[in-house]
Amino acid sequence: MAASLEAMKRMIGNAARLIQLISRIWFIVWHYKGPQPALALPVPDGDNAALIHASCPGDPMKAFQEYYPENVAHCYGCGRLNHAGHQIKTYWDGDETLTRFQPEPEHTAIPGFVYGGLLASLIDCHCTGTAAAAMYRAENRPMDSLPAFRFVTGSLHVDYLKPTPLGPELQIRGRIKEIRGRKVIVEAEVSADGVVTARGEVVAVQMPDSFKA
Amino acid sequence: MAASLEAMKRMIGNAARLIQLISRIWFIVWHYKGPQPALALPVPDGDNAALIHASCPGDPMKAFQEYYPENVAHCYGCGRLNHAGHQIKTYWDGDETLTRFQPEPEHTAIPGFVYGGLLASLIDCHCTGTAAAAMYRAENRPMDSLPAFRFVTGSLHVDYLKPTPLGPELQIRGRIKEIRGRKVIVEAEVSADGVVTARGEVVAVQMPDSFKA
Repeated sequence: MAASLEAMKRMIGNAARLIQLISRIWFIVWHYKGPQPALALPVPDGDNAALIHASCPGDPMKAFQEYYPENVAHCYGCGRLNHAGHQIKTYWDGDETLTRFQPEPEHTAIPGFVYGGLLASLIDCHCTGTAAAAMYRAENRPMDSLPAFRFVTGSLHVDYLKPTPLGPELQIRGRIKEIRGRKVIVEAEVSADGVVTARGEVVAVQMPDSFKA
Repeated sequence: MAASLEAMKRMIGNAARLIQLISRIWFIVWHYKGPQPALALPVPDGDNAALIHASCPGDPMKAFQEYYPENVAHCYGCGRLNHAGHQIKTYWDGDETLTRFQPEPEHTAIPGFVYGGLLASLIDCHCTGTAAAAMYRAENRPMDSLPAFRFVTGSLHVDYLKPTPLGPELQIRGRIKEIRGRKVIVEAEVSADGVVTARGEVVAVQMPDSFKA
């Protein structure tokens, strides 16, 4: 009886792995658009940027990540075009920024608690999104104006204050600590059921040329 | 033509999401073992631990994570029982520790480069595994002896030095910086094709009672 249960579990495991493989192949096929051109994100230019002023700094119902140019919207954490990823969505909430995220059952650390690597990932992408939004806001430019701001992570620090329960929706709240040239420093707090369980800080840097293909 | 391609892509997308949902339900069913008892990891006890001496500090062919007790082996990053997760495997390499990991195509940041949240996750689990192994080694105990050591992350810091190419296998190399009571501080370096692209430091802490169900 126990042996046949084990055999069944093994069979289901193999089937799950096969499906995972098929879905990965699909992922590649799905995203294949022929030979990719070199990334052509215009590099922000202080003088030109200063000429662009707009009355509206962005649609409050549209997430920061929905403004990312298509060629830089495949990030596993926040890219709207990465269908295998987390696709987080971040919005202004006054002068702070807010992401809500529902972890999946597999995002386990110790059973019953959320995986710390997921929390680090959420903080990371929440903060790079916040950095881009902060730059548009600082220049009073709408988020769909050019040149586009897209930030990558220079450094990430996370303090895990207490175990994060796996079940409730998480809130990630960001505060802009400093804007300095091409860098934005963002602080973030993760909470579950209103209890802060982790704090992070990200030094976000405008995407350097070394990221261009 | 373009419209039917779009329709096909949408159909494949829906199918992929359905399969993902089914595989998530499987994940839950597969791991369900009836009502879970409270975690019963024995808490390491200085006096008793000192009585246990063994000639062999562990099988060098067996990864640290393969020694994790079954009730704490579901971590998304390193749990051998989490079939949706990364299942990293870490080994001694002299006085350093080594994990090799092949990112998947979906682990994208900007196209062509590895997602920073994945690197943070790999560093995290590599370092908590290293911390456990370091404690067994410090006490000259085999890794399957009791009380079991299992560490969680107190804090995580990652400096992203340069973009990590998506394609080659990654190496994560750890060094034990300090063992202090229930804490172990581990430094880690991520490299791709022999080039170090990220450096991290983790303060790993023996699993506190607050993680027990």
